[in-house]
Amino acid sequence: MRIAFVGTGVMGASMAGHLLRAGHEVVVHTRTRAKAEPLLAAGARWADSPAAAVAGADAALSMVGYPADVEQVWRGFLSAAPRGCLLIDLTTSSPALARRLAADAVARGLRPLDAPVSGGDRGAREATLTVMTGGSEEDHAAALPVLSLMGRTVERLGGPGAGQLCKLANQIAVASGMVAMTETLAFARAVGLDLAVVHRAVSGGAAGSWPMTNLAPRVLRGDFAPGFYAKHLVKDLGLALETARECGVELPGLELAARLYDRVLAAGDGDLGTQALARRYFGAA
Amino acid sequence: MRIAFVGTGVMGASMAGHLLRAGHEVVVHTRTRAKAEPLLAAGARWADSPAAAVAGADAALSMVGYPADVEQVWRGFLSAAPRGCLLIDLTTSSPALARRLAADAVARGLRPLDAPVSGGDRGAREATLTVMTGGSEEDHAAALPVLSLMGRTVERLGGPGAGQLCKLANQIAVASGMVAMTETLAFARAVGLDLAVVHRAVSGGAAGSWPMTNLAPRVLRGDFAPGFYAKHLVKDLGLALETARECGVELPGLELAARLYDRVLAAGDGDLGTQALARRYFGAA
Repeated sequence: MRIAFVGTGVMGASMAGHLLRAGHEVVVHTRTRAKAEPLLAAGARWADSPAAAVAGADAALSMVGYPADVEQVWRGFLSAAPRGCLLIDLTTSSPALARRLAADAVARGLRPLDAPVSGGDRGAREATLTVMTGGSEEDHAAALPVLSLMGRTVERLGGPGAGQLCKLANQIAVASGMVAMTETLAFARAVGLDLAVVHRAVSGGAAGSWPMTNLAPRVLRGDFAPGFYAKHLVKDLGLALETARECGVELPGLELAARLYDRVLAAGDGDLGTQALARRYFGAA
Repeated sequence: MRIAFVGTGVMGASMAGHLLRAGHEVVVHTRTRAKAEPLLAAGARWADSPAAAVAGADAALSMVGYPADVEQVWRGFLSAAPRGCLLIDLTTSSPALARRLAADAVARGLRPLDAPVSGGDRGAREATLTVMTGGSEEDHAAALPVLSLMGRTVERLGGPGAGQLCKLANQIAVASGMVAMTETLAFARAVGLDLAVVHRAVSGGAAGSWPMTNLAPRVLRGDFAPGFYAKHLVKDLGLALETARECGVELPGLELAARLYDRVLAAGDGDLGTQALARRYFGAA
């Protein structure tokens, strides 16, 4: 299959690599060409724009930063994709935008799917991501062989935008889970307990979570390097809040987490990992 | 060993049963005698009061509801325990009270330990609890053979009260983890997604947690029966808040969770499980 892949950052590069290794013909474009070099060295072809990448493609995938980036990339896809081309957005982005782009794509005889992923840099590297799709059953089925090269679990949630909605639901749990983990450590520290012993005592039971297992140890050793950027979680929480308000559902935990992560950004820690939330509670070390 | 056990509710009965099966001589007392009947049938002896239970005992354990109950039971222990007797409180209770009772116990030649547990009814049944102790190293070591019959992990956190402090840290993660899980489902429901598919998609990744794995399925089938009483979590969060304020550490996630669980109580759902929080977000089913 000929596949266009736009956005070869940390996660995108791993994901495009899986497609390449499976024998697909991969054409890449990304904002900073240097980030695509390892893929080009491994056999991918370079294109100067999303439109150039999608010409002649069977499928085009985007993995970029923000909804505005998705919109720009897809304008290119929509202008130049051949009829019947699968357009798959892997970015965590706006459900409303996904619906709008899907309608435009269908009107041009294209096959759109929103397909945000969870599992982070490690899931991308090890092809163990969870992929949550929104689109028609037929297009989901057609995309499955490609998506299965990058993810272990691929679930269709419904029509256009439904994948994004599920991913936002996921991020709500991630954000409050970060608050849970961080406040446990902050409390234990304030009362003078040995944090390593506390972590051992609480991780295996009802207090256990992915952040407790995977990110608390980083906090304890002062490692705030990004697995997942704090600034990207801020974007996701903004989208989740917007959607929640549209639906009239009140989510005070989400509102609080969004406020706390806004402070992470305001402190200049947006390019650190999400565990940098701990710095708001107990300083840098 | 001759062991007094006071408080044979859901968890206490399982725990006392392990001591009995290990060959210890167990003397029980509990507020409602009927709850002790299975233990009496299995060979435990009845005592009419905590003081009567502790007479001649090598160790005395309490597993009751609230700090006021702990204080009352320990007044009995302190009045009648033989010198050198281990006094172990398994209740989640006030760190300040634990310190005060420990001082009284030491003054009478007794060996106090606060040793709250996590792992719920199932952990109690299967002897896989985590036990977090506060007290002297010697008393911790002396209690280890008894505590190991009930728990898989037994960690000493420090002097008197330190076990309680660690358990409160644990409950902070539990409470915000419940908010995380509940709001994920509430959001997914409000936007019209299939909750079973969402649960499948989000459980295995960064959104994963003990409540997501163990309690979300109960919420989805409308099962609000108590594994752990909501009213007891409210008590724990009150103790955590009080302690946090004393230490001057600001924990907005804990404050929010405490407010939300106060509403669970106000709605008359305190005798349901902690997953009844979901009823505040989306009604009884």
